Amino acid sequence: MNMKITGTGYYLPDNIETSEELSRKINKSTNWIISRTGVSERRISQFDVDKMGALAASKALGNNIPDLILNASGVGKQIIPDTSVFFQKELGFNGIPSFSIHATCLSFIVALHTASLYISSGTYKKILIISSDRGTRGRNLNQPESAALLGDAAAAVLIEPSKVNNQSKLVSFSMETWPDGAGLTEVRGGGTHLHPEDKKTTIDDNYFSMNGPKIYKIARQKVYKLITEDLKKNNLEINDIDLLIPHQASNLAIKAYSKYGGFDEKKVINIINNTGNCVAASLPLALCIAKEQGKIKRNDLIYLIGTGAGLSIASILLRY
Amino acid sequence: MNMKITGTGYYLPDNIETSEELSRKINKSTNWIISRTGVSERRISQFDVDKMGALAASKALGNNIPDLILNASGVGKQIIPDTSVFFQKELGFNGIPSFSIHATCLSFIVALHTASLYISSGTYKKILIISSDRGTRGRNLNQPESAALLGDAAAAVLIEPSKVNNQSKLVSFSMETWPDGAGLTEVRGGGTHLHPEDKKTTIDDNYFSMNGPKIYKIARQKVYKLITEDLKKNNLEINDIDLLIPHQASNLAIKAYSKYGGFDEKKVINIINNTGNCVAASLPLALCIAKEQGKIKRNDLIYLIGTGAGLSIASILLRY
Repeated sequence: MNMKITGTGYYLPDNIETSEELSRKINKSTNWIISRTGVSERRISQFDVDKMGALAASKALGNNIPDLILNASGVGKQIIPDTSVFFQKELGFNGIPSFSIHATCLSFIVALHTASLYISSGTYKKILIISSDRGTRGRNLNQPESAALLGDAAAAVLIEPSKVNNQSKLVSFSMETWPDGAGLTEVRGGGTHLHPEDKKTTIDDNYFSMNGPKIYKIARQKVYKLITEDLKKNNLEINDIDLLIPHQASNLAIKAYSKYGGFDEKKVINIINNTGNCVAASLPLALCIAKEQGKIKRNDLIYLIGTGAGLSIASILLRY
Repeated sequence: MNMKITGTGYYLPDNIETSEELSRKINKSTNWIISRTGVSERRISQFDVDKMGALAASKALGNNIPDLILNASGVGKQIIPDTSVFFQKELGFNGIPSFSIHATCLSFIVALHTASLYISSGTYKKILIISSDRGTRGRNLNQPESAALLGDAAAAVLIEPSKVNNQSKLVSFSMETWPDGAGLTEVRGGGTHLHPEDKKTTIDDNYFSMNGPKIYKIARQKVYKLITEDLKKNNLEINDIDLLIPHQASNLAIKAYSKYGGFDEKKVINIINNTGNCVAASLPLALCIAKEQGKIKRNDLIYLIGTGAGLSIASILLRY
């Protein structure tokens, strides 16, 4: 599918919380945190998701004005309206169609694929995708492992049509959802089931809960199968891929792409040590940082892949 | 765009609340309710949104198995994972890619357009779109007008490619978002801003709030302009449209399509008297009921249109 990422931008809050500082809040040692999650420090935002997202988006846009704004975040600013509206408000635009695509940590992958369809069909010509998550707002300090993983960040990309004779395109997209794993990553509250004013709703229901080891076990198999299928259907060898950008689920999950997936560790972007798992913002953040560090060149074959609550797995092969 | 609605199904809960019954809960007369909203009765679901949506979806699917499940509801079952996963779980499927498209009351219009892109690009061949909303779970009895408007319902459609020589297609799609109106329709709580466990969050923040008269004033102008533009860009006269299916925002809003929009009242689907405003489910519910009542024939030109929190307006012209 015809598309090209023409702008990238991210926002990392100034305020750093080290794992030493966090260790006192969750009654675990710094070593426990780092060995379990791989996170030495994470950012904690004083701004809400709309401002964070707009700061990232301004960098991705430059002087461009988008003709569609897609929110591709994990958790919204509020239940109604959806966060895309608040991004537009913060950016000072008016009248631009805006909506959300939600697949938790995979929201960016799904939105990027959908944006490519919009671009190739000619419906829109400048699509702004924003992923902005303030995971630390929903962390449960009584659940040390997930609390230690989460961090705040926002990242954005601008998508435009690829010019004739230009190789940039979306090569393929895959996604699977396995609802047996729905209970493994949850914020059970906030909706119609355990409404905030329902007396049955507990404090834990309103915070993030995750069964990391069980997800890892299921995900490793399913992700390995997805990689094999993606390579086969696109007639590719593993070494044809120039860069793998995984969702930053945990250090163990990222390492598995080289340990079990067969990817050269130098080709796998791993930023979790300094940012943590930034929910849906993790994947575009890793993309933006890789771009900034000169790890992505035009026409490189980039592989975006990850797992998300659902349990879902998804991937995109991108000729950058 | 190549696409065809090949299945429709809806679920209306058995439990009816008359406006006489509601009048005692909101301290307003039955006449006040009916004259302000046009709603004589609404349904109140004992099931949560996932089961409601699955009941509608089963009817739309028949024996088909979808290859994509899109949740196009206003408010989810819970914050994470998104409701599409729970629809899949209730339907007993496994491995089918599932995610949400969220544009509040316009979620169905945006999802239908996006599904058409997926179909025309060949990415998916049987897309299930489900809108399921339990608005009465979030109604604020201290806000009589919006409380009287809301009702519960679910509706679903199955989308497949249109065969060669078949006229069925999506003719055009339009959308605009005006964030100046973000405060006019809100559930301010539930997300990162006014988190359920935040002491600043009030009871009112967790319930639906709406400034009906102000939305009506803004929407009437913007919707009229959208209709004029849609007709012009598709080279159509108002009488070329066989049926107008509006979001069931309020009786006043629906009546405006004939009073100010120039549509013959007989061509405007109005089901608000017996169902209320069912958030995102209203529009597909009106479509499904119109279909059931024999008001839609193959190749009819159908116009779906509405307003949603944002403030957004959107429309789809559909050769059914």
